[in-house]
Amino acid sequence: MRGAVMYAPGDVRVEERGDPRIRETTDAIVRVSASCVCGSDLWPYRGVETLEWPAPMGHEYVGIVEEVGEEVRKIKPGQFVIGSFWASDNTCESCQAGYQSSCINRVPMGALGAQAELLRVPLADGTLVATPEVPSADLIPGLLTASDVLGTAWFAAVAAEAGPGRTVAVVGDGAVGLLAVLAAKQLGTERIIAMSGHEPRQRLAREYGATDIVEERGDDGVARIKELTNGLGAHSVVEAVGTQESMLQAIRSTRPGGHVGFVGVSHGVELPGEELFWSLVHLHGGPAPVRRFLPELVELIWNRQIDPGKVFDLELPLEQAAAGYQAMDERRAIKVLLHP
Amino acid sequence: MRGAVMYAPGDVRVEERGDPRIRETTDAIVRVSASCVCGSDLWPYRGVETLEWPAPMGHEYVGIVEEVGEEVRKIKPGQFVIGSFWASDNTCESCQAGYQSSCINRVPMGALGAQAELLRVPLADGTLVATPEVPSADLIPGLLTASDVLGTAWFAAVAAEAGPGRTVAVVGDGAVGLLAVLAAKQLGTERIIAMSGHEPRQRLAREYGATDIVEERGDDGVARIKELTNGLGAHSVVEAVGTQESMLQAIRSTRPGGHVGFVGVSHGVELPGEELFWSLVHLHGGPAPVRRFLPELVELIWNRQIDPGKVFDLELPLEQAAAGYQAMDERRAIKVLLHP
Repeated sequence: MRGAVMYAPGDVRVEERGDPRIRETTDAIVRVSASCVCGSDLWPYRGVETLEWPAPMGHEYVGIVEEVGEEVRKIKPGQFVIGSFWASDNTCESCQAGYQSSCINRVPMGALGAQAELLRVPLADGTLVATPEVPSADLIPGLLTASDVLGTAWFAAVAAEAGPGRTVAVVGDGAVGLLAVLAAKQLGTERIIAMSGHEPRQRLAREYGATDIVEERGDDGVARIKELTNGLGAHSVVEAVGTQESMLQAIRSTRPGGHVGFVGVSHGVELPGEELFWSLVHLHGGPAPVRRFLPELVELIWNRQIDPGKVFDLELPLEQAAAGYQAMDERRAIKVLLHP
Repeated sequence: MRGAVMYAPGDVRVEERGDPRIRETTDAIVRVSASCVCGSDLWPYRGVETLEWPAPMGHEYVGIVEEVGEEVRKIKPGQFVIGSFWASDNTCESCQAGYQSSCINRVPMGALGAQAELLRVPLADGTLVATPEVPSADLIPGLLTASDVLGTAWFAAVAAEAGPGRTVAVVGDGAVGLLAVLAAKQLGTERIIAMSGHEPRQRLAREYGATDIVEERGDDGVARIKELTNGLGAHSVVEAVGTQESMLQAIRSTRPGGHVGFVGVSHGVELPGEELFWSLVHLHGGPAPVRRFLPELVELIWNRQIDPGKVFDLELPLEQAAAGYQAMDERRAIKVLLHP
């Protein structure tokens, strides 16, 4: 089969890789209907993070089950499935507490390479959620977002305690930030401030429910948020970037007693303890337990109550994965869908 | 009147200070029945923190109202009162949200010097809680703890979401740590692990409800907590020290999805963003909004349902305040009560 492999920063190739096979009795093999490039794939692409080169790429996927291991009970060949970017058993104490991204048996799907024609999914019964039927083509982008970017945004909005009566601010206008606006809206938030200086992203943010746009960044952005929130800051702030600047912007935009939900994969961040102490904010975040939210998100998408697939503003054949990385790196695309 | 003043690290003197007078129409003047030395007073005493020397000291107090400003409506002369270490109006948006330590009109009581015979309390109606009657002498130490150390411990336990079905670990065996054990117990926690290598403190921790004692510190302490919690870490961890070591010990002792309540005044702490991200813990803390809990705590103490006053293992006349600081600095005393 064909799959994307990163050889070095900036060097993504699509090449022949061996077909994945059932290795554990709890595995499934999925024929990938669609995959995509994640903002977190840009960290190694930009050389900020090192992988074991050459590294198979991709951890977001939807597709049709081809084969299952002999201990797989719920998932059946022929089903259309979505899974999180962590494979998880969904039965251990962490999973039962809703933290499947800390499953004691978790497997990072990124190591398996979902930007490919076929994918081995460990712990299939725990990891995968099947749709009622094979979806029509127009639903596939939305369902694909549930695999990571929507699930991550949803977790961030929940961690930030978005909801009725609260003002939400979102730091980061990538796909996760934009979908955090959608999540906050779905969770009942009336006032949602999107921080973005980029017109097409502002437009999508408004479409997803943003009531205010703040173009300023850093301290100026914080000052604008305070102006809009009676001098106190937002109740709920989503951080969807992962840098020192964005984390401080998020914490400083939050009122005392408010909540920061942070999901941008942290790179080079050092949080000053004294500032955090005196801020009196709540902090929660990390690798999202997407599996917790999958059944609900799949249902919302299936019933066309939300349309998160709009974050894909570029669709390419898998063979052109390299062009997809480049477009996202240069911020010409919000998020790139790959068709195997 | 007489009051304690710090002239430099290690140099506390009790001397004549002018009697405080009503300055704002919302002030009260309180004749202090008892005050005490706080763990946070040790930061400047040890030279870790600088004050504007000479600095009047003390921010914990109970006493009898002598006089009130003309806009004070609820608090009356003759009442026995307890107030938090932040004066707060208890009406602004932050106060109404339960974050009186971020009151938009807050005044730090430390600047006014509660280790004294008389104390001016700003925003008296918002700040002070009166007991039903003047208490008997044996209740005074307990009521005094509500002013800071118990209220802070209570906030930490609430921030850590202590309660039924959860395992709580407490980092720090000072008065706040010990009272966090009491708070966790009162909040319905069945299993409480106190981290202490100090026998008399272990004994009080057990008396307050600790079911397990961990003597190890740092990484060894973390390993012990994990052994005691099915390899996952505690659900709820209270941090009551404020150093880099104690913060990391707290975060690392907490399971994914668990909660850290941190109230040790942060000194020189830099939290590594990546570790925090991957830990998946909730973090909440800061200067405790003690006023939120005061009515409930005063009632529990008044009805003798809890006895937090046991943390005072040394009582001295105000004139010997310097000896009190020294005893706490050398860890010969857990907490020192001062009688004006």
